[in-house]
Amino acid sequence: MTELLDRGRRILAQQPFSMLVGSELVSFEPGKCELAVPIRPDLRQHHGFVHGGVIAYLADSSMTLAAGSLYDDALTLEIKINYLRPAVGEQLVARAECMHAGKRQAVSRCEIFGVHEGQMRLCAAGQGTISKLEPR
Amino acid sequence: MTELLDRGRRILAQQPFSMLVGSELVSFEPGKCELAVPIRPDLRQHHGFVHGGVIAYLADSSMTLAAGSLYDDALTLEIKINYLRPAVGEQLVARAECMHAGKRQAVSRCEIFGVHEGQMRLCAAGQGTISKLEPR
Amino acid sequence: MTELLDRGRRILAQQPFSMLVGSELVSFEPGKCELAVPIRPDLRQHHGFVHGGVIAYLADSSMTLAAGSLYDDALTLEIKINYLRPAVGEQLVARAECMHAGKRQAVSRCEIFGVHEGQMRLCAAGQGTISKLEPR
Amino acid sequence: MTELLDRGRRILAQQPFSMLVGSELVSFEPGKCELAVPIRPDLRQHHGFVHGGVIAYLADSSMTLAAGSLYDDALTLEIKINYLRPAVGEQLVARAECMHAGKRQAVSRCEIFGVHEGQMRLCAAGQGTISKLEPR
Repeated sequence: MTELLDRGRRILAQQPFSMLVGSELVSFEPGKCELAVPIRPDLRQHHGFVHGGVIAYLADSSMTLAAGSLYDDALTLEIKINYLRPAVGEQLVARAECMHAGKRQAVSRCEIFGVHEGQMRLCAAGQGTISKLEPR
Repeated sequence: MTELLDRGRRILAQQPFSMLVGSELVSFEPGKCELAVPIRPDLRQHHGFVHGGVIAYLADSSMTLAAGSLYDDALTLEIKINYLRPAVGEQLVARAECMHAGKRQAVSRCEIFGVHEGQMRLCAAGQGTISKLEPR
Repeated sequence: MTELLDRGRRILAQQPFSMLVGSELVSFEPGKCELAVPIRPDLRQHHGFVHGGVIAYLADSSMTLAAGSLYDDALTLEIKINYLRPAVGEQLVARAECMHAGKRQAVSRCEIFGVHEGQMRLCAAGQGTISKLEPR
Repeated sequence: MTELLDRGRRILAQQPFSMLVGSELVSFEPGKCELAVPIRPDLRQHHGFVHGGVIAYLADSSMTLAAGSLYDDALTLEIKINYLRPAVGEQLVARAECMHAGKRQAVSRCEIFGVHEGQMRLCAAGQGTISKLEPR
């Protein structure tokens, strides 16, 4: 398990955009992934909420990591995100789970929460398709 | 027309995350929007391509601006993005168009291109729903 | 509870297409819905599996009923369906749940199963947005 | 071209559900497809409009045929449909186009129209992913 978490953290650390956003891999098990992003002022949009692009980043990354944990390497084919509520609080948490991993593609779902004073509030939900990449 | 472009640029300038990503509003007409993001090293993932989260940011922003140009204010309800090819080149360009604007919701589509030496290559396509916000 | 189930069955009985497909409302509670469709030869595609259109019908209907149970009347805004496996067996079962019901829109998810000799096998997953209709 | 249209019509004729719905292949070229469904009373929902499931059937079928024309055989991975307006009139027409066909997957878009007294009205828009099936 620790090995998988280490591998996930290495991948994230090699993604300059994940570092720019401030993304952290909280937990990583086969088929499951939890990412967190501390909410900084520069992640906001003009109404003061977290920008939808940050939430979309979390949906993409968490769902692809969850599926990728079951494959050697993986690539996002498509994602769909529903925004339910403005995201506020101290941090965002994304929890993704792979629903089905086939020979060539997997399907994951995620929920994204705003965490304020320890209370989690669901603010977005995603579903997406991830392609298995063959080792070259 | 200049008035609308100015209004769009003001909104973008008030979004700290759009400034962090380096997003620029190229053109803005009723129902249409073009955004550009110069590709910087810190927008990449671990294979050296632009991170899917940057593309998702562009899909969200361009489709919501395209629909929002027809309303007083607007909010993204949901987006769906298909990733077609790795995004490479000097900049990303997102072109969005509002297909239908109803009394309460609008639907937009977008295409996102990687621009390399003046050549545009389609790398993602999106479709989404935007909610009209009533002035308070 | 029986009242809500009766209301749901009346709506379904008033939908000629639901009758053509052979759809049955198994259970209906606030925010939740289960539909079943016995698999008949005329619901198939050319490989002998249930046609994706039947599965899409179930995704649409189950998610909109789940959200509609919380409103006076409801309308599907958009649906997204991932097909995971060919649907085979004696019947299809769709289970939908409303994740979030706001003032104007709700978001539901569903899972669709093929049932063969009492064994349920997940064959599709959906997520969608439903609009609240105001009584006229 | 006639050969492709013949092949498409044979596939449709082998799909009992397409026959149940009354689907007709109007045109079929590499990467493009047009399907029509005459609106019959038994395709309706309880408000008298065409059921969303019929529209979802058309989105699925037209997008998969458009992509499938470029492959030996094809399978729908996922579809997303936005419902824009109630579908009314004498027939439904779905026009799909494949945006991108890769080695393993293709992405298509479609528009679905209600045709009333010769006037076409856009009532839904879709985007989806289609998997290339290798000949066994």
